[in-house]
Amino acid sequence: MTAKEKKPTAPKKARAPKRATTGPLHAAEDTREDTREDTRLRELAADRIAIEGVEPEIDGGRFPAKSVAGGRFRVEADIFGDGHDVLEAALLVRPAGATESAWTEAPMVLFDNDRWHGSAELPENRLYDFTLVAWRDLFASWRGEVSKKYGAGVPIGLEIEEGCRLVASALAQAERGTAEDRKAMARLDEALRADAVEGDRFSLLMSDDTAALLRRAGPRTNLSHYNKVLQVFADRPAAAFSAWYELMPRSQSGDAARHGTFDDVIARLPYVRELGFDVLYFPPIHPIGKTNRKGRNNSLVPEPDDPGSPYAIGAQDGGHDAIHSELGTLEDFRRLVSAARVEGLEIALDFAIQCSPDHPWIKQHPEWFDWRPDGTIKFAENPPKKYEDIVNVHFYRDAIPGLWLALRDVVLFWIEQGVTIFRVDNPHTKPFPFWEWLIGDVHARHPEAIFLAEAFTRPKVMKRLAKIGFSQSYSYFTWRNQKQELADYLTELTREECRHYMRPNFFVNTPDINPYYLQHSGRAGFRVRLALAATLAGNYGLYSGFELCEAAAVPGKEEYLNSEKYEIRAWDWDRPGHIKDDVRLLNDLRRRHPALQEFANVEFYNAWNDNILYYGKRTPDLSSFLLFAVNLDPHSAQGAAFEVPLWEFGLPDEATVEVEDLVTGSHFTWHGKVQHLWLDPAQRPYAIWRLIPPGAPR
Amino acid sequence: MTAKEKKPTAPKKARAPKRATTGPLHAAEDTREDTREDTRLRELAADRIAIEGVEPEIDGGRFPAKSVAGGRFRVEADIFGDGHDVLEAALLVRPAGATESAWTEAPMVLFDNDRWHGSAELPENRLYDFTLVAWRDLFASWRGEVSKKYGAGVPIGLEIEEGCRLVASALAQAERGTAEDRKAMARLDEALRADAVEGDRFSLLMSDDTAALLRRAGPRTNLSHYNKVLQVFADRPAAAFSAWYELMPRSQSGDAARHGTFDDVIARLPYVRELGFDVLYFPPIHPIGKTNRKGRNNSLVPEPDDPGSPYAIGAQDGGHDAIHSELGTLEDFRRLVSAARVEGLEIALDFAIQCSPDHPWIKQHPEWFDWRPDGTIKFAENPPKKYEDIVNVHFYRDAIPGLWLALRDVVLFWIEQGVTIFRVDNPHTKPFPFWEWLIGDVHARHPEAIFLAEAFTRPKVMKRLAKIGFSQSYSYFTWRNQKQELADYLTELTREECRHYMRPNFFVNTPDINPYYLQHSGRAGFRVRLALAATLAGNYGLYSGFELCEAAAVPGKEEYLNSEKYEIRAWDWDRPGHIKDDVRLLNDLRRRHPALQEFANVEFYNAWNDNILYYGKRTPDLSSFLLFAVNLDPHSAQGAAFEVPLWEFGLPDEATVEVEDLVTGSHFTWHGKVQHLWLDPAQRPYAIWRLIPPGAPR
Repeated sequence: MTAKEKKPTAPKKARAPKRATTGPLHAAEDTREDTREDTRLRELAADRIAIEGVEPEIDGGRFPAKSVAGGRFRVEADIFGDGHDVLEAALLVRPAGATESAWTEAPMVLFDNDRWHGSAELPENRLYDFTLVAWRDLFASWRGEVSKKYGAGVPIGLEIEEGCRLVASALAQAERGTAEDRKAMARLDEALRADAVEGDRFSLLMSDDTAALLRRAGPRTNLSHYNKVLQVFADRPAAAFSAWYELMPRSQSGDAARHGTFDDVIARLPYVRELGFDVLYFPPIHPIGKTNRKGRNNSLVPEPDDPGSPYAIGAQDGGHDAIHSELGTLEDFRRLVSAARVEGLEIALDFAIQCSPDHPWIKQHPEWFDWRPDGTIKFAENPPKKYEDIVNVHFYRDAIPGLWLALRDVVLFWIEQGVTIFRVDNPHTKPFPFWEWLIGDVHARHPEAIFLAEAFTRPKVMKRLAKIGFSQSYSYFTWRNQKQELADYLTELTREECRHYMRPNFFVNTPDINPYYLQHSGRAGFRVRLALAATLAGNYGLYSGFELCEAAAVPGKEEYLNSEKYEIRAWDWDRPGHIKDDVRLLNDLRRRHPALQEFANVEFYNAWNDNILYYGKRTPDLSSFLLFAVNLDPHSAQGAAFEVPLWEFGLPDEATVEVEDLVTGSHFTWHGKVQHLWLDPAQRPYAIWRLIPPGAPR
Repeated sequence: MTAKEKKPTAPKKARAPKRATTGPLHAAEDTREDTREDTRLRELAADRIAIEGVEPEIDGGRFPAKSVAGGRFRVEADIFGDGHDVLEAALLVRPAGATESAWTEAPMVLFDNDRWHGSAELPENRLYDFTLVAWRDLFASWRGEVSKKYGAGVPIGLEIEEGCRLVASALAQAERGTAEDRKAMARLDEALRADAVEGDRFSLLMSDDTAALLRRAGPRTNLSHYNKVLQVFADRPAAAFSAWYELMPRSQSGDAARHGTFDDVIARLPYVRELGFDVLYFPPIHPIGKTNRKGRNNSLVPEPDDPGSPYAIGAQDGGHDAIHSELGTLEDFRRLVSAARVEGLEIALDFAIQCSPDHPWIKQHPEWFDWRPDGTIKFAENPPKKYEDIVNVHFYRDAIPGLWLALRDVVLFWIEQGVTIFRVDNPHTKPFPFWEWLIGDVHARHPEAIFLAEAFTRPKVMKRLAKIGFSQSYSYFTWRNQKQELADYLTELTREECRHYMRPNFFVNTPDINPYYLQHSGRAGFRVRLALAATLAGNYGLYSGFELCEAAAVPGKEEYLNSEKYEIRAWDWDRPGHIKDDVRLLNDLRRRHPALQEFANVEFYNAWNDNILYYGKRTPDLSSFLLFAVNLDPHSAQGAAFEVPLWEFGLPDEATVEVEDLVTGSHFTWHGKVQHLWLDPAQRPYAIWRLIPPGAPR
């Protein structure tokens, strides 16, 4: 953070709309009225410069924007005054709720049509306040006008005298700038008074040093404050950039007849890490209910040894803070968390609020559940569909505050066990205020906590969940297969306002989603979807089996056959036809290339073939500039002419640019803007190139 | 206003962002913390339903939206909850600052993708508060679920009992609905208790009457409030719909050698009224300074009898509240205002804040002006350009509050003389807070006052002036001549957010703007621009001489030759080639057709010729539906195929529609969607048709 001065001026708190709302008598008849209007007048007068159109500002400041600790946080605003005076503006940032003296300041710069931008580093993982100030720089205005008059040959003797007076006035009220600045100002004032020669005074006044000094240490005339203090939450980097691997712990024994344990999972950590993932995520690991337990393939008639769905949480031996005994003990789990950490992996847990009919809470807190007139508990349903093995809590009436605090304590309990990433099951069927409170409360204690919203629902509901605090969001990516729909969706996510608060996590599959595209695409399709997810999104994930190109589906449904949700499976992790090389390559590129660590930096370029999605990602300084071409057709080779974005480097259409093929490692040269590509899904359905800017190290 | 209940629930005041900002200890270690979090939890929990994306909401509620007294004010919002329950929502409106009991309520209706709309009539010319509430309708949710189960053949005995309990509960907490509703609810409850037959109870519960009763008088579960009270200013209708005629009073004697008087203007009122105008606007009528007076054609060397620019306001005999003595007395002016009123015309005055060097304020209030080091006053300038005959006040330092109050009192003075419309000269060179205060202060006393901002400057500055209170705004219309640029500009004005606060006034010319287009277009071009302005905008205006097709320009400039700004002119108002018939026709159509009295209802349709702008305007119920075609090329006849928007009436492409030609009065029929037109500028460069909806009276 560039702290330009030690004592930045404090912005005022948000104000309500200022318009008069009553109809007083005519001023001439009521002098008291003038006094009141006088107050209002002085209050309004204080903010002479208009500051509006601030971005990010989520719902008028109702919700914080999101950023990343250690990264730069960019703010834009429309800033303008009356008349033609030179303006200056600054972005102010402080830890949320800190004192007025805690504001630090970064300069704002005009870049287009009254639009300004500025940025500040947010060093810590925490909530910050930010706001804007602007002021008139009278000396700079004077300087501009005098330049014009001098250029037009107009006499400027009086103007020089006015300039000297501006310096004297700046010296008299100097409270800003360093002690050195104040000394320099005094020297300048003295020199202007001492020197009787008009030309010398003019040179002194017009020098760049003088302009810079007055800009730094001169008065801030009509200092105006944006009328709100906004907020931004700086997450730790993993909230914005991570690769997830999901597996069912109970399927990790290698033997479908033996229930997997945490120790089995520990044995699989090197596999996950070697593929390059950052996060290892488990569906619920809690005791599974027996009442109405589901059998294989979601059957209502289970076999005696069927393990049941892990989403039917809670049994005799415990609920959301207990561990399914066949997986191991809490001690075993802690060991797993530590072992994962050693491998450079974080464990993410599922936070699924529903209960099996055997959950201890039902007896302990009947007031958290809905009961039928016949005294039975109300099962979950979406009429006429029924969910026989789970019941839902309700969140209001007698469930406030007991249930809310209990659920919060579940999260805090797992954080104590070393877990700070939570994938939240179906958050859109629980009240928004509950999540806003829970995430806010947990973040106030543990800002490192990351919450992924598993909400596949209407767009505004998904966005609301992101606004109220979810760090990441499942997305519609899984159902966007065509070139235009992918480009449209990515453009919405990366260009519209939601980019300031919603971070999609592009899962290529989940235990609930066996995408139709993959059911018929063969191995090539898995490589296509993997390449898209890993290169388009900051966060992406896959559910184990994807790397083996597992596609067996319940006929006609988007569900896996013999789903691990209802049975224990054993897998051959080296099964022929796997795509582990692609996974390894893409995760490695993500780590090595900064352009892949951003989300909103994707740009779609022209490739003249509707089957080929062609796009670039780059850092603002262009030092990392990657191009991607993906053949969306898993069945046929496709070719296309495509445009190399030479213009992004300011190069002419006929320029030459050096390129590294990031898959093969080969270097070559493109001459001219239009090139041709050919992608055969049987060979490799995607290409990834690094553009080497002219003059940059290879 | 549909007041659905006598005591609408009061919305809460705006709240600051609610996120926790501190990092307390773990709850287990600090029980006081839980108490505080408990408060926050209950506060958040109150608003279970999400209400967001409210429109209009100008800059997060910082500024009021604009509407018209007696018209309907439409509000949209995204409203949604968790889960699938049936929601209801309402728009609340009250006079600004009124008590909580003053809220009246209008229903909101879901129309698309979680988007709702509702509207309320704003009966008075004043400022209103508005906000939104939403709630869950548990009975409606129950009804929907039971319908599905019944349809699927699922047993519903328990559901019927649950429905009866919902009725009993509604009866027990009934505070809403009429006394009659409460009686009906008691009868229903009694019938449900008395009737043991399941089928009868089911029929009773599922009846539409029961649903309507519970909707009206049942509980509002999870009643949620939008987190802001917004505002809307309801102007009188003339703010949104008016035709202006501008003239220089001193040029109305009919003799360039004799200074015109207010009596001369009175004699011209029938002319203005007969042309169909609503507002008669004068440039400044105040004493004109003598120091540095401008001569003809802006000469720096005036002749002794040159009258000077009326914008050099103030002389020995007075300033902004005095009248130039050659025009008459204040008494004469009042007589003119009354005579105009008799003719159905309102007088609009110019509010131009600059002063001539002879303005009395300069001696009375030297602290309102800028002074040079040599003791001379600082003249207005835009370096290196100088304005020799005027000086500007400054608005800060010692000018607060004296100057602000004095200028406000100038406006109040003219309101006392019967003038409530002010065209404000160059408001963008005066501080925004000054205007916000002045207009707010005047509106609180005289909500009927209308302020037109004459700001031709950058788009955001113009929009800001509209936000801070100006009722109408000059626009870029004068410089939009081509088909695409007209359509683009109108689309911005009528579709973007600014439509809620900015009302353009389309002037075809002004004393300062003799458009290049008209300098070369001949009479046809005047008819083109007149037709565009009168039919595209709610407010439009012309400066006298336009109806005579006056186009003589200072060579190479957009200025009138021998401008009335610097000399007295005499005009032959029946000069050959005038277009008074067009003016009369268009103003008459504006009065007779409601579709022309809206601004944001313009829709551009297809006419396959780049010279022909083709558009429609209509009322929401389609009872007034006009089509306009204008040949923008004043030199050549142009023809085009065009689309009759049959689809707006739900008619097929091959349908027949009856049409009235509003210029000729003839009736005819169009068969099919595509028709052809031919517009010869030598005959008439525009066509106006009324579509007569099938089955409507002719």
